[in-house]
Amino acid sequence: MEKIKVVIVGAGGYGGCGAIELLLGHPRAEICALIDKEQVGRPISDLYPHLKGFCDMPILDPRQAQCPEDAQVVFFSTPDGVGQTEAGAWLEKGMKVVDYSGDFRFNDLETYKGYAARIGRNQGHAAPDLLPQSVYGLAELHRAEIQGANLVGNPGCFAVSCILGLSPAVKEKLVDPQTIICDAKTGVSGAGKNPNPTFHYPARYDAMNAYKVSGHQHVYEVERELGRMAGDPVAITFTPHVVPLSRGILTTIYARIREGVNVNTLIDAYQAFYQADRFVRVFGPETPQISTHVRGSNFCNISLHVDERTGNVIIVSLIDNLVKGQAGSAVQNMNLMFGLDETEGLLHPGIYP
Amino acid sequence: MEKIKVVIVGAGGYGGCGAIELLLGHPRAEICALIDKEQVGRPISDLYPHLKGFCDMPILDPRQAQCPEDAQVVFFSTPDGVGQTEAGAWLEKGMKVVDYSGDFRFNDLETYKGYAARIGRNQGHAAPDLLPQSVYGLAELHRAEIQGANLVGNPGCFAVSCILGLSPAVKEKLVDPQTIICDAKTGVSGAGKNPNPTFHYPARYDAMNAYKVSGHQHVYEVERELGRMAGDPVAITFTPHVVPLSRGILTTIYARIREGVNVNTLIDAYQAFYQADRFVRVFGPETPQISTHVRGSNFCNISLHVDERTGNVIIVSLIDNLVKGQAGSAVQNMNLMFGLDETEGLLHPGIYP
Amino acid sequence: MEKIKVVIVGAGGYGGCGAIELLLGHPRAEICALIDKEQVGRPISDLYPHLKGFCDMPILDPRQAQCPEDAQVVFFSTPDGVGQTEAGAWLEKGMKVVDYSGDFRFNDLETYKGYAARIGRNQGHAAPDLLPQSVYGLAELHRAEIQGANLVGNPGCFAVSCILGLSPAVKEKLVDPQTIICDAKTGVSGAGKNPNPTFHYPARYDAMNAYKVSGHQHVYEVERELGRMAGDPVAITFTPHVVPLSRGILTTIYARIREGVNVNTLIDAYQAFYQADRFVRVFGPETPQISTHVRGSNFCNISLHVDERTGNVIIVSLIDNLVKGQAGSAVQNMNLMFGLDETEGLLHPGIYP
Amino acid sequence: MEKIKVVIVGAGGYGGCGAIELLLGHPRAEICALIDKEQVGRPISDLYPHLKGFCDMPILDPRQAQCPEDAQVVFFSTPDGVGQTEAGAWLEKGMKVVDYSGDFRFNDLETYKGYAARIGRNQGHAAPDLLPQSVYGLAELHRAEIQGANLVGNPGCFAVSCILGLSPAVKEKLVDPQTIICDAKTGVSGAGKNPNPTFHYPARYDAMNAYKVSGHQHVYEVERELGRMAGDPVAITFTPHVVPLSRGILTTIYARIREGVNVNTLIDAYQAFYQADRFVRVFGPETPQISTHVRGSNFCNISLHVDERTGNVIIVSLIDNLVKGQAGSAVQNMNLMFGLDETEGLLHPGIYP
Repeated sequence: MEKIKVVIVGAGGYGGCGAIELLLGHPRAEICALIDKEQVGRPISDLYPHLKGFCDMPILDPRQAQCPEDAQVVFFSTPDGVGQTEAGAWLEKGMKVVDYSGDFRFNDLETYKGYAARIGRNQGHAAPDLLPQSVYGLAELHRAEIQGANLVGNPGCFAVSCILGLSPAVKEKLVDPQTIICDAKTGVSGAGKNPNPTFHYPARYDAMNAYKVSGHQHVYEVERELGRMAGDPVAITFTPHVVPLSRGILTTIYARIREGVNVNTLIDAYQAFYQADRFVRVFGPETPQISTHVRGSNFCNISLHVDERTGNVIIVSLIDNLVKGQAGSAVQNMNLMFGLDETEGLLHPGIYP
Repeated sequence: MEKIKVVIVGAGGYGGCGAIELLLGHPRAEICALIDKEQVGRPISDLYPHLKGFCDMPILDPRQAQCPEDAQVVFFSTPDGVGQTEAGAWLEKGMKVVDYSGDFRFNDLETYKGYAARIGRNQGHAAPDLLPQSVYGLAELHRAEIQGANLVGNPGCFAVSCILGLSPAVKEKLVDPQTIICDAKTGVSGAGKNPNPTFHYPARYDAMNAYKVSGHQHVYEVERELGRMAGDPVAITFTPHVVPLSRGILTTIYARIREGVNVNTLIDAYQAFYQADRFVRVFGPETPQISTHVRGSNFCNISLHVDERTGNVIIVSLIDNLVKGQAGSAVQNMNLMFGLDETEGLLHPGIYP
Repeated sequence: MEKIKVVIVGAGGYGGCGAIELLLGHPRAEICALIDKEQVGRPISDLYPHLKGFCDMPILDPRQAQCPEDAQVVFFSTPDGVGQTEAGAWLEKGMKVVDYSGDFRFNDLETYKGYAARIGRNQGHAAPDLLPQSVYGLAELHRAEIQGANLVGNPGCFAVSCILGLSPAVKEKLVDPQTIICDAKTGVSGAGKNPNPTFHYPARYDAMNAYKVSGHQHVYEVERELGRMAGDPVAITFTPHVVPLSRGILTTIYARIREGVNVNTLIDAYQAFYQADRFVRVFGPETPQISTHVRGSNFCNISLHVDERTGNVIIVSLIDNLVKGQAGSAVQNMNLMFGLDETEGLLHPGIYP
Repeated sequence: MEKIKVVIVGAGGYGGCGAIELLLGHPRAEICALIDKEQVGRPISDLYPHLKGFCDMPILDPRQAQCPEDAQVVFFSTPDGVGQTEAGAWLEKGMKVVDYSGDFRFNDLETYKGYAARIGRNQGHAAPDLLPQSVYGLAELHRAEIQGANLVGNPGCFAVSCILGLSPAVKEKLVDPQTIICDAKTGVSGAGKNPNPTFHYPARYDAMNAYKVSGHQHVYEVERELGRMAGDPVAITFTPHVVPLSRGILTTIYARIREGVNVNTLIDAYQAFYQADRFVRVFGPETPQISTHVRGSNFCNISLHVDERTGNVIIVSLIDNLVKGQAGSAVQNMNLMFGLDETEGLLHPGIYP
């Protein structure tokens, strides 16, 4: 059977590299072009030498890239603002698009503007006409829509961990959605490939910190998704932290439990909610999870706890920020958009230690 | 002037090593004996070779240790259960005692039993008569009592970060004390010196996890201290996490803000509360703190934030778990107990990077 | 086509885990039994939770294990002494054996005894009759013999990096083999899964050291292999070091260059020697290699340098100690022993960062 | 007694920060001005927040800095080229100078030019007249000259570990100096404070590599010092490596042993050579050293081994690159230049873990 031909724009960043790694092992898809505005002309394996002999394609200039005639899908592994400017042209050629940024996570202009304000983009959206057809690419919540979509906004890494960690509790009204607090810890790869003083090795060694306290933009899509389920707008307190590891997000979620709910109710609800989801694993309080359990894989592990003394649930949600939090979700979305089994190319457990 | 002679019981652990490092640089105190039940007879610099030439004293057997006649204070850097059994004999000789464990953090038997149940000790206390004279050794809250005390229970490392992070807010009724959530992240040294599978290097590399969810014993002393200030019992949700660094505790604290309180009220209250406290540094939201800012020093850095959207305060409290969270507090307490300047031997900024 | 059925003895260690990870992705082989003397009865995914849903087989007791009738090959991922005691029984049943330890790396008793003395085993070999049929499992040097073998001694991790780094130079007489110095740096996973004070996380953090200076047992097989090629016995100075990463061996190799040899001669010789070897990548001095280039993969990257001023070659040889240095070589050997393409199940680039 | 007033030029880098930390604890010296061309006007504690409350001096512009009248010594913690341009003016004012770079490590122009060529500086020296009075600042070899000097060239970090590791062996003719190989491993802080792709946290995590193979400039001063002792020019093979820790240099040194020398001869020679040197600790093969033994301190630990089989000595030399390898040596030199006890302000064991 012929393989789906994939173009990656922004191939030189971690998100591009992650997609390449996954697509190399994908039985039904293959890379047909790599595009980036930097390092044009160099083989990708110069930037990522572990790929040498596996993928030595040259990086193409986005302004001159001859898109292969038979390309079928493009991944925009690019910052906010790129996809909205360029996606239209690819869609017109009949290709499908998965955008990693916030550009297509909100399918109406008003909501997008609320998000954009948080990241200091106040110039509106470059392709508002495309918004209505865009679908939020979290397969566990929007599988059917993604299957029918040509344009998918891949979710933010923190958002994946928060939304998967909270959906059953909010949907089944097991917690008070107005009391949700998400305390997230991320590895440094989440900050991307470009060096800066904050993520210089000696500065980050033996170091941890909170940042963007109450101001991280990913909370916006979390509130939107959970608000839909709650039937009411919700406001969430979200604090991201950087801890000195490379990969992984662990989000500890707190919320007031509803009267009559106990840990078993919770576990049952989560297992029911995720029964068809191969990439979510649910655990009770007796099976504490470590970030290495999902490292290098597309899984989200969720462990559920109730503090009877204080009346709070404590939910620990773990992902690999570069896989389920980024390239893995992109491939999962591509699988759905092309009618493949959602797990194609993604059923690896990762490596340990 | 003559120096205070210090005995360390449990000298072979990290808490003993930390005390030795601090006392070597202390102008008014010196070590006179090192006691441990393991490695008896070996010079301490065999266990901690960086001490070679600085402190080569042999480790004495606790059953045979000839306490130097002129010893004046003993640090029990020992697990729960040791200090309560042995402190009495030292007190009778006229020595002062600082115990690192939970043995003397609660000055009545009933409260102690509540704590002890959490760590599975149900056999009561070995020296209940000593409890009434014991003082909780957090200088910022109990300075005067410590100055008059012969027996001090050094606070738990997590407790230091939580209590210092919350005291002004609770005391000044700026938050609802029944809504407090403490999400703590600790380096691995907090688990002590003994190897185990969980803290084996490859198992811990690139790994993070929550543990003892809703069950860590340090919350008990936090609730006691804050309850006193609130004038009512408080129940706190506390989740410790291990992250892959060596030193440091970062606790992110959440609570509902009281009507009319804003970030400036908060900052003013904290600055006023800690104005006489050399080892607490208070920061507003524009000065985010990193754990390396307190690494190797006796400081607690607190940064204050308010999430106007959700009505929560977010307080980030940072310490070095082995200094302010352990040996540094012990030395600070010793200074107070002997009428010295509280900062003697402790005014180092740490090293960076 | 039917898959090869693999039994793993010592499944609970890192070497077993590595083999499971590789076999899960192997199109022509599958695990049929996991055996270990510890944790008997528990699913392997309890020990390695990232395997949950991929491999949940229970661990069988080695004394009671019912070997599946159709098992075809057994991996002994066990310490020295186990394979030599047990391999005979499996061979008699018609199975093939790959042993990870030094038990079958030397195919005559005399040489084995020399090796064994280094690790303090002086009781001889438990199955000397098996030695003559055993083959040293470094495919790049012994491919044809491995293809015909039933019993293969998988090479030591350090030995792989040294031998691959040196073979062309010694074989082609480009260096004086009596001047070879190997300075190896390994990640901590090389020390295995069992916790001990030396590899306790805080003890290893920001720490590096040399160990077994001039006394590591892997040098024995390096000297044997290189001596064969040199046509004379060689004595090698070998110093292993532990550095604080999880995976990887980097060996820096020094030797006096022969008159008339330059870096181009060297590069040509290495490229010629390894032209048929998919898992060795050769680089000149202008392409320095980093251990992450081979992390998680079965590759050995070699970069070649000549110091004209001093007349030494400097060869940097990089592997992942748990893949090419252990489980990857085992699978590569299995592929050869069963007539498969040597690269089956091994063509992954690893993940980055 | 009045304190020595110290000016630091290049205060914003790690070398400046290290000097500040040491001078804060120095009983006989104090900082009187901090100068840097970046971050002018900001308190140094903005750049290094652990210094807050200890040193909040503003950074002065080098072009406008009003040097305090009573300043007595200036540290140039600056790259090659700065000290040679600026030191003259400070010397003329009667101040003493310690320069961290290679500018004053070679006291004749010819030798300097040889060094400078290695780092691509071919424009000669800006102050050749000053070279004859400059002294190489390794106290263990040049104590008396340093005591009489006004201008000291602080040694390179790798050079400190190599020269201290080799001096007794070369001086006492225990090894063949033409066979020396130095294999050095350094923590990342050695690369300084400026971020770049190579030392970006995720790129460096779990990563190690050799670099500047046969081309690092520090070998030049090592060869000069050892050549002097050997009585003949020596050529040394030197390979630096970066390993993923923050602080520390471990250099493994190899050389052919002279006939009749054994490990005891070696140990005796080293102990005799360093008997008056408080900051060098010598160990035999039975006391392997770990980099944490010198972490945060001004010590060099040396352990001595002989490989009888191959006829090589193996010497492991350990320092903290930021202390004995940089700021600690600078303070040690200052102490000597001002007639103080060499150890003043430097007798700390560091902290562990």
